[in-house]
Amino acid sequence: MITTPFERETLGKNTQQLVDQLLEIGLALSATESLDELLHLILTKSREISFSDAGTIFLVKAEAEPAVLEFKAAQNDSVVLPDHVQQYTVPLTAQSLVGYAALKAESLNIADVYALSGSETYQFNRFFDESFNYRTCSVLVVPMQNISGQVIGVLQLINRKRQQNAILTPATARDLTQPYSPWEEHIVRALASQAAVIIERNHLLKSIEQLFEGFVTASVQAIEARDPTTAGHSERVAALTVRLAEITNATTHGVFRECYFSDRQLQEIRYAALLHDFGKIGVPEAILNKQKKIFPEHLEVMRQRFALVRRTLEMETAQAKVNYLISHPHTPHSGEHPCDHCAFFRHLDSELQQRLHLLESYWHTLEQANEPRVLDEEPLARLQDMTHFYYKGIDGQLYPLITASELEQLLVRRGSLTQAERQMIESHVTHTYEFLSRIPWTQHLKNVPIIAYGHHERLDGGGYPRGIGAADIPLQTQMLAIADIYDALTASDRPYKKSLPVETALSILRQEADEFKINADLVELFTQQQVFRVLGHEA
Amino acid sequence: MITTPFERETLGKNTQQLVDQLLEIGLALSATESLDELLHLILTKSREISFSDAGTIFLVKAEAEPAVLEFKAAQNDSVVLPDHVQQYTVPLTAQSLVGYAALKAESLNIADVYALSGSETYQFNRFFDESFNYRTCSVLVVPMQNISGQVIGVLQLINRKRQQNAILTPATARDLTQPYSPWEEHIVRALASQAAVIIERNHLLKSIEQLFEGFVTASVQAIEARDPTTAGHSERVAALTVRLAEITNATTHGVFRECYFSDRQLQEIRYAALLHDFGKIGVPEAILNKQKKIFPEHLEVMRQRFALVRRTLEMETAQAKVNYLISHPHTPHSGEHPCDHCAFFRHLDSELQQRLHLLESYWHTLEQANEPRVLDEEPLARLQDMTHFYYKGIDGQLYPLITASELEQLLVRRGSLTQAERQMIESHVTHTYEFLSRIPWTQHLKNVPIIAYGHHERLDGGGYPRGIGAADIPLQTQMLAIADIYDALTASDRPYKKSLPVETALSILRQEADEFKINADLVELFTQQQVFRVLGHEA
Repeated sequence: MITTPFERETLGKNTQQLVDQLLEIGLALSATESLDELLHLILTKSREISFSDAGTIFLVKAEAEPAVLEFKAAQNDSVVLPDHVQQYTVPLTAQSLVGYAALKAESLNIADVYALSGSETYQFNRFFDESFNYRTCSVLVVPMQNISGQVIGVLQLINRKRQQNAILTPATARDLTQPYSPWEEHIVRALASQAAVIIERNHLLKSIEQLFEGFVTASVQAIEARDPTTAGHSERVAALTVRLAEITNATTHGVFRECYFSDRQLQEIRYAALLHDFGKIGVPEAILNKQKKIFPEHLEVMRQRFALVRRTLEMETAQAKVNYLISHPHTPHSGEHPCDHCAFFRHLDSELQQRLHLLESYWHTLEQANEPRVLDEEPLARLQDMTHFYYKGIDGQLYPLITASELEQLLVRRGSLTQAERQMIESHVTHTYEFLSRIPWTQHLKNVPIIAYGHHERLDGGGYPRGIGAADIPLQTQMLAIADIYDALTASDRPYKKSLPVETALSILRQEADEFKINADLVELFTQQQVFRVLGHEA
Repeated sequence: MITTPFERETLGKNTQQLVDQLLEIGLALSATESLDELLHLILTKSREISFSDAGTIFLVKAEAEPAVLEFKAAQNDSVVLPDHVQQYTVPLTAQSLVGYAALKAESLNIADVYALSGSETYQFNRFFDESFNYRTCSVLVVPMQNISGQVIGVLQLINRKRQQNAILTPATARDLTQPYSPWEEHIVRALASQAAVIIERNHLLKSIEQLFEGFVTASVQAIEARDPTTAGHSERVAALTVRLAEITNATTHGVFRECYFSDRQLQEIRYAALLHDFGKIGVPEAILNKQKKIFPEHLEVMRQRFALVRRTLEMETAQAKVNYLISHPHTPHSGEHPCDHCAFFRHLDSELQQRLHLLESYWHTLEQANEPRVLDEEPLARLQDMTHFYYKGIDGQLYPLITASELEQLLVRRGSLTQAERQMIESHVTHTYEFLSRIPWTQHLKNVPIIAYGHHERLDGGGYPRGIGAADIPLQTQMLAIADIYDALTASDRPYKKSLPVETALSILRQEADEFKINADLVELFTQQQVFRVLGHEA
């Protein structure tokens, strides 16, 4: 393949420089993650090695139907290229130089493209030359092949200069350039393929990162769907937390002037925030969705019981009448009323009505108490009374109208959950931590579990589940806690908590900060820098 | 840094060869994914370039406390190394050559390690030489530095030979070797660092793949925890399906002789199997865990209703007695019994007892019917009767003893689910598909959603949710379906389905295959090749 023995002359540099360049390129290519940087690197370095005036890169867009070559990067020493070149594509056919190289997986090494015989399948497109007053002479087009030989792109070098620093004009271009040597072709082609391999590897890495991110997001959504009142909560909290962290980064004075989170730390914060409520999957739906103090099906049991009690009272009254009539055989008294038994019956009936009335009013109280509101004193007392209202069950035993467990539920002072149920909800934090701890986080995400773990802890030690204090709560977690509270207050879909206006939510946050529950400096930053705008909220 | 102008002599080869070697190494390093392969590649290539007789690689084990250098690979042209070298570590201190290079991030280029003055901090360890009757003369130790300059390992080259193919003995070693040139040091160090960058990138890729795998597994476990009867099901189905696919790969005759799944396709199959029931997160726990035909809380409502009916009958009897006594005023009859009203009362009481007895027997029937067994004819008829048994509610209206909806639930012929509930369970397949379709799978995993989607379809079109037939069900899905059925039959924790012995499960599979529901060839392979052994089952 290599035909000229005069490598030194051909390459216009000594071996030592060339070897150094190749070593440097190998290292730089391997170390570059961004596709754009990589494309410009390979353009710069291959032009440097080959003394090329200009170069372009096209990548195969295989998803397109039919597949096309997409223009990706260009460099030119003699022409000032516009900052933003219109994106364009070239059909993947043998009619263009780049299309030919891509389709055939062959290099094209042309001494002067203006001298093409016209018998070739490919043609040189003079559009660029005409638009930019340029003269393309020698061209080297090499396929960028991955490890299986598949062409993923094309590198095109233009105008091999005799002197590296020459600036070309249409008038001088022919004199100042020369054809590419076979050895240059060989070297450039090898570098192009190394770039292809690295581009693919980077693409794979990015795809798997996206896959992970996509899976996490979809799982979080699936879990949130169990509790319709929190749809979107995790995403919003993640957006708020990351924004707050970015703002501490931008802060150049005050307590956060030294605080800086790297991109990787921001990603760690984002995952911690996104997953902070993942453990809710371990909390039964009935508890998550409990709206009143008594579960609806159990209220039905109680409704039937009240009916049973009512019927029992009716039965007992009827029975009392039977007993009375048997023990007080009444003499017939020629239609004369009221008589003895009538008076007693009236007494019994009126007593029954009173009892039934009481029962009805108890039911009314119960329905009132069942709402997740703060209870007044009066219903409280009446609930206690109900436990002393006994009725005779069908087994003949006496039972209270409401059980101790029902009383406990109805006596809940705030919200709808008993202490045990609240503990079940609160256990989501531990579930989250246990879940996240089982995951083999990469080095850069290793703090995700611990950041998420503390999101219900409070600076004064009054939070849960560990009751740790300010010194033990990471700053990232303190941010997450504020975002979590803010979203809980302003989200429109939490039951029995109307969504609050931004101002009110902020003043509640300030109040919590005054009580040393959450970080006052962060709350100030949150307010001052209007972090909530990331959700589209306006102060 | 480069001190000798005679590169050609120093390197013992011409520039063209060297450049080709460097290009080849750059490409090969970039394209190698396995750490072992990469380590042997860098050893082979750096020895080739530098005419080294031997070489070893150590990697820094940063997790160790304190950090150590871990021996990873060795090559030696003059000594036959044992196939399996005992893994060993070297302290990360400046006392050894490799420790020094790693700690100081400096190269060591020593002309003859036996001639070290003793004033250096490092010492040469002659253990290898003594064990293998070898003589180490020149040594080049270079740090492998990542892009941030951090040392992740050390490459040690031994005995720079004058002639590449020379075989060294302790007697000839000094004469046949020479010191490494500064330029060789320069080249090897650059290659070592390129390898370091690629090792780190590969490690990152692997870490993220593991992270994804770990997250998927943990989520599946979290979802399975909602339904304790299916714990471990997804993992078992994944193991069975992948094993079955591997066995079709190994099959060289019969229908599967041409069937081959690549490692990536096996991974795709594994994820599809692991996630096939993910959509169960969209099915309410109450349905997933429903054990009897009537939900327990609702059975409580019915129990109270039966009590109410009983009490109503008692009340009505008492009321009938009152009415009788009032309309039949009885003359007192000097203790003479039985009298008229007594006879009527006995009639009423006996009628009441009959009704109460009927009610009790109805309850008994109801409890029997509530079990998820196949119903006999007799209870079926009695359940129908109950809908014609009316009682007077407390509002005075007549109500049937059991409602139409309760009857529907109790009439379920098999299992515990009504048609609507069964549809909710079956909807998990669609939930799975919708969930998986939202995930940005990499190119190699793009069929995960469609493979999982069909796991309840049957070859004869009788499956769900689409009712597609054999031609439209991917082979991977047909494998998954068999694994799913096998595990459902043999798992010990499904309610009301005792775990079946392997033989019985296999014969059920064969029967399903005979009915053209599942793939008979796969069932045969599953049976013949004892795929179930992957779960530790024995035929």
